[in-house]
Amino acid sequence: MQKHTGICIIVSILLGMNVVNGGQQNTLNLMPVPEEIVLKDGIFRLDESFALKIDGPADSRLYQAATGMLRRLAGRTGYFLPQDYITAESNPEHPQIIIKTSRIGEVKLFEDESYSLTITDKQITLIAETDIGVLRGFETFLQLLSIDKDGYYFPNCIINDKPRFPWRGLMIDASRHFMPVDVIKRNLDGMAAVKMNVFHWHLADDQGFRVECKTWPKLHDLGSDGFYYTQNQIKDIIAYAADRGIRVVPEFDVPAHATSWLAAYPELASAPGPYTIERGWGIKDPTMNPVNEFTYEFLDKFFAEMAVLFPDDYMHIGGDENNGKQWNANPEIQQFMKENDIPDNHMLQAYFNKQILKSLTKYNKKMIGWDEIFQPGLPTNIVIHSWRGQKSLIESAQKGYMGILSNGYYIDLIQSAEYHYLNDPIPEDTPLSAEEQKRILGGEATSWGELVSYETVDSRIWPRTAAIAERFWSPRSVKNVDDMYRRLDVTSFHLEELGLLHMNNYDMMLRRLTNNHNISPLKTFVDVVEPVKIYTRHRQGKIYTSYSPYTRVVDAARPESMTARHFADLVEKYIADPKNPDAAELILQLSVWLENHRQLVEIIKVSPVLKEIESMSADLEALADLGLEAAKALAKHKTLKKKALKASDVLFENAQKPRGQVELMIVPSIRKLVAAAGN
Amino acid sequence: MQKHTGICIIVSILLGMNVVNGGQQNTLNLMPVPEEIVLKDGIFRLDESFALKIDGPADSRLYQAATGMLRRLAGRTGYFLPQDYITAESNPEHPQIIIKTSRIGEVKLFEDESYSLTITDKQITLIAETDIGVLRGFETFLQLLSIDKDGYYFPNCIINDKPRFPWRGLMIDASRHFMPVDVIKRNLDGMAAVKMNVFHWHLADDQGFRVECKTWPKLHDLGSDGFYYTQNQIKDIIAYAADRGIRVVPEFDVPAHATSWLAAYPELASAPGPYTIERGWGIKDPTMNPVNEFTYEFLDKFFAEMAVLFPDDYMHIGGDENNGKQWNANPEIQQFMKENDIPDNHMLQAYFNKQILKSLTKYNKKMIGWDEIFQPGLPTNIVIHSWRGQKSLIESAQKGYMGILSNGYYIDLIQSAEYHYLNDPIPEDTPLSAEEQKRILGGEATSWGELVSYETVDSRIWPRTAAIAERFWSPRSVKNVDDMYRRLDVTSFHLEELGLLHMNNYDMMLRRLTNNHNISPLKTFVDVVEPVKIYTRHRQGKIYTSYSPYTRVVDAARPESMTARHFADLVEKYIADPKNPDAAELILQLSVWLENHRQLVEIIKVSPVLKEIESMSADLEALADLGLEAAKALAKHKTLKKKALKASDVLFENAQKPRGQVELMIVPSIRKLVAAAGN
Repeated sequence: MQKHTGICIIVSILLGMNVVNGGQQNTLNLMPVPEEIVLKDGIFRLDESFALKIDGPADSRLYQAATGMLRRLAGRTGYFLPQDYITAESNPEHPQIIIKTSRIGEVKLFEDESYSLTITDKQITLIAETDIGVLRGFETFLQLLSIDKDGYYFPNCIINDKPRFPWRGLMIDASRHFMPVDVIKRNLDGMAAVKMNVFHWHLADDQGFRVECKTWPKLHDLGSDGFYYTQNQIKDIIAYAADRGIRVVPEFDVPAHATSWLAAYPELASAPGPYTIERGWGIKDPTMNPVNEFTYEFLDKFFAEMAVLFPDDYMHIGGDENNGKQWNANPEIQQFMKENDIPDNHMLQAYFNKQILKSLTKYNKKMIGWDEIFQPGLPTNIVIHSWRGQKSLIESAQKGYMGILSNGYYIDLIQSAEYHYLNDPIPEDTPLSAEEQKRILGGEATSWGELVSYETVDSRIWPRTAAIAERFWSPRSVKNVDDMYRRLDVTSFHLEELGLLHMNNYDMMLRRLTNNHNISPLKTFVDVVEPVKIYTRHRQGKIYTSYSPYTRVVDAARPESMTARHFADLVEKYIADPKNPDAAELILQLSVWLENHRQLVEIIKVSPVLKEIESMSADLEALADLGLEAAKALAKHKTLKKKALKASDVLFENAQKPRGQVELMIVPSIRKLVAAAGN
Repeated sequence: MQKHTGICIIVSILLGMNVVNGGQQNTLNLMPVPEEIVLKDGIFRLDESFALKIDGPADSRLYQAATGMLRRLAGRTGYFLPQDYITAESNPEHPQIIIKTSRIGEVKLFEDESYSLTITDKQITLIAETDIGVLRGFETFLQLLSIDKDGYYFPNCIINDKPRFPWRGLMIDASRHFMPVDVIKRNLDGMAAVKMNVFHWHLADDQGFRVECKTWPKLHDLGSDGFYYTQNQIKDIIAYAADRGIRVVPEFDVPAHATSWLAAYPELASAPGPYTIERGWGIKDPTMNPVNEFTYEFLDKFFAEMAVLFPDDYMHIGGDENNGKQWNANPEIQQFMKENDIPDNHMLQAYFNKQILKSLTKYNKKMIGWDEIFQPGLPTNIVIHSWRGQKSLIESAQKGYMGILSNGYYIDLIQSAEYHYLNDPIPEDTPLSAEEQKRILGGEATSWGELVSYETVDSRIWPRTAAIAERFWSPRSVKNVDDMYRRLDVTSFHLEELGLLHMNNYDMMLRRLTNNHNISPLKTFVDVVEPVKIYTRHRQGKIYTSYSPYTRVVDAARPESMTARHFADLVEKYIADPKNPDAAELILQLSVWLENHRQLVEIIKVSPVLKEIESMSADLEALADLGLEAAKALAKHKTLKKKALKASDVLFENAQKPRGQVELMIVPSIRKLVAAAGN
């Protein structure tokens, strides 16, 4: 627990120092880290009289947020706080926290989200230009709630905070797998908790068209298998997002990734139909016809309707991965290109985009699309969404275009939080001028939906997206990875109170996998595996579709094994000094793994779905055995025998092979331990 | 695991035999138990070619249900089944299951829900008069999925099944605490899984009016704190329920329990306003004015709108707990009673109900209400909903009225599944004639919402409601309590796959209570406590309101401690024979409790919200210590010393005292153990 020392710690993030050092682990759990924190002596003690007052203009957004903040505070502490539902009439005699705001913010790009939070012994003030800034401040405030032997308190401090980037997004793909309204809502809550402000909703793709469309009703009738959002649900979600200061940017991917549209309206296609909704994954041929006037009439009317339904200034038109096969094979299209001096499919798509842009402009929308839309001749108010990499982002910024980065934030590819965290939209060595840098608006984490179900989506998004949120909000200098992981653990825990199931569903899935037997041995195993990375899962003999089961070990396994990460630390320390204070923990961990397989095989006997990981579980036992031998040798300053080392090579080779599409993440650490004991 | 013995077991529930005996625990996990099961030799082996075909009329309800059944089967087995979305075009060459139905069912009282399921080595058939019967059969089918060393299978059998009662309901109170749409939907899924068919939606009470009303918009504007269902959400929920063969019966409680209406329209009240939404619990005074014509004009227009919004034939008007204070104090009302020869408030409410009935009849609705509405002169097509007890149900049946029972099914009162299970709507010793018995339509579990939040509601409803569902569906003779608990455990586990959080949120709440520390010692403790029963929780110094935190130990604790129940069994066996095979388990359990407190106090130090249970945790340690001593004495055929016995009395007295509003459930068992060792 934190002692309230008399030291006044001034932390300047701008100087590249980190807020928290190893010795003060319970002091601050802020994520994202604010721009500026000054910690002061003393504390504000929370008690059951805690009440708030709002000064300045407010509407239901701020009242709801204030009420919700009190409920979360009460929920954590068990305190019976006196205020019920905050309204304009809420005027407690002795408010301990006063909220001051100057105006009601607009949910749009570049809106002011800054705030200042001052905590003293007896009084807390939260000041922000807009109510949206207040919302951001509430999240910081809740993250500051601390505990000592006398109860709950907030550390005295002054925090001045604002985001580094104005576009901090999360994309959820609701086309490959439909994501029910409650999934979207709880993820919006998660986004708000880490100060993200753009929900990019991938609503149409080969595998499903997910929006009720009144102009072209076959889109949802024939393109969705019945799984689509009604316009009322969409309005409800947009309002829910706005109440959290989050923009909703819809994506309707054209002209490729459009099979579901063509299942409904085959006359839009570049090749004769009929089409059926795509069930498999990958880049598909069906593409809209760019030389058919009906395509543009259709899309013009379509965007006219969607422009009203989705109030944000931006409309995402996708534009990615057009393989050109249908265009190449269509004589009319080829003829058109010849007649109009269009040299290649790339320029033909530019022609297509310009027609779309006319519609969007007519309906007061600005265009955003993936890298491929970046073509000479488009106005500079479009936004380039880079999935391919820094290069295209830099190039477009240099040519005067705004851009956001998603390359490096593909959370569906099962990479580490560290990998995403250290990926900066504007790296230190950027070749961009200060003026050009301003065109980099931020970035988006992208949760592509091929291998994700409504049960697993939370664990694919959280907690890693919180690290990405920090990258978009906090100063570039905030990049201490160990400290990020420490805070990520706390953040992940707090995200649960919003209804996110990234932790809960792990146990649920393990229970199903064991057929309701004791999950403990399976958990010990799954805790140290990760799903295979990048696109490997599609290349291991299983053919996945939109209706495959996503309930196996690979789906329960978390994208990043914190147990394996921690074990790697223990191994490093042990190799440096077998008598280090954590040495016993390493031995204990290896002993648990040594005993685990014999328990897990009993469970596998009564749950055939687990058979696919049986041999890997046996490998874990063998690795633990070997690890213990190596640890013993190191402790006794002996070296492992050559014979043992040779046998270990075979084991390592086998153990690192994926099975059931998961990988055993402790192999490198055991290898290190054995190597150290071999010298 | 189940061996496929060559015995053909014929089980006749009607003869009062139970389907499952202790020796065949993995054979059948059916809940509710079907009317008739004939188990046959052999099995149907499930493989990845499994496909279904529908014969007969069907619409999206049956297609969705069939698709969902395949997804759940795939989810449990990890099998990549070949069919995607079932439609009229789904015609596999070799369907392993053929579904035959004669007509599309109507979601209304008395609809046919019967089905026959026949499983043989190579073929499964599911035959039902209506598609709703097919849905009931799907749930039985999924419950039959079994495991042996070769994989997944279904036991060969013939099941003929139909419900005992046509009205099998669950009431959710969304007024005291608003329950979001996803809470309602997942509970509808749970209901369907155990073959319930009426969702009674308690939508208005003193603490909140939860329906968007276009005729009288202040009802939701001023009566809900912003927490209400839009009409679109209500339509969505009704459609969702209908897709599961579940009726939605709305309740608008009048003339009492109406403060939220009066906050919006004080002119309806029997005493001058203004009124504000009630925050506390209990029976309140505000009551509609039964002698004001405006009341009836208002309600007539109101029911006109609601009659369209809610398509079910029945409308629940509440009618309970009118304390009469406002009526007694209002001279106009008194004058009216005198002029119209109305002797008491009871008859005045009968007058009120008759006016309401006119409106309901006009809008083609039948009336249902709580006991209090039962008054001479009402037509016999009304339904009496008994919350007071069997007596009123019997009386109304004898007088020609239909009725349903909720007395004994108040799941908010934190009683055991056994208690509810053995409560029969028509007990064996019923005085009712066969004809009168037909008027008992069934019953409803009632989840009153005072002490329930969206986080805890699932654990208050499930799994106990599954036992009640069995009471309403299965023959009266099915009442083996131990077998019910065995199947309830399996059912509870399977309910998780529907998204219900009754198990998941337990760990989540414990994590919050420990402030993200190791939950294991807290879990050991909370596993053996239960919230205080009946209405005790309101009488222990805490004043609860609609905005109090429902996040403490008492809220995390489950209504029924299965650990304590199991421990009671262990104690019984131990007293009978200290060398019985489970004796070691008893000693181990006591040893775990003996060690638990010293771990839990460390957690309490860093989580003040747990302080309220600290002394009870210490008692658990002391009880374990005493229990171990008693067990040792029993094993050695010695008796405990008088001094120890005397000290134990003090301990028992203290340990049985509630703290933090929970009770330690192992006290009686330890007491038995000590008593046995004292003789």
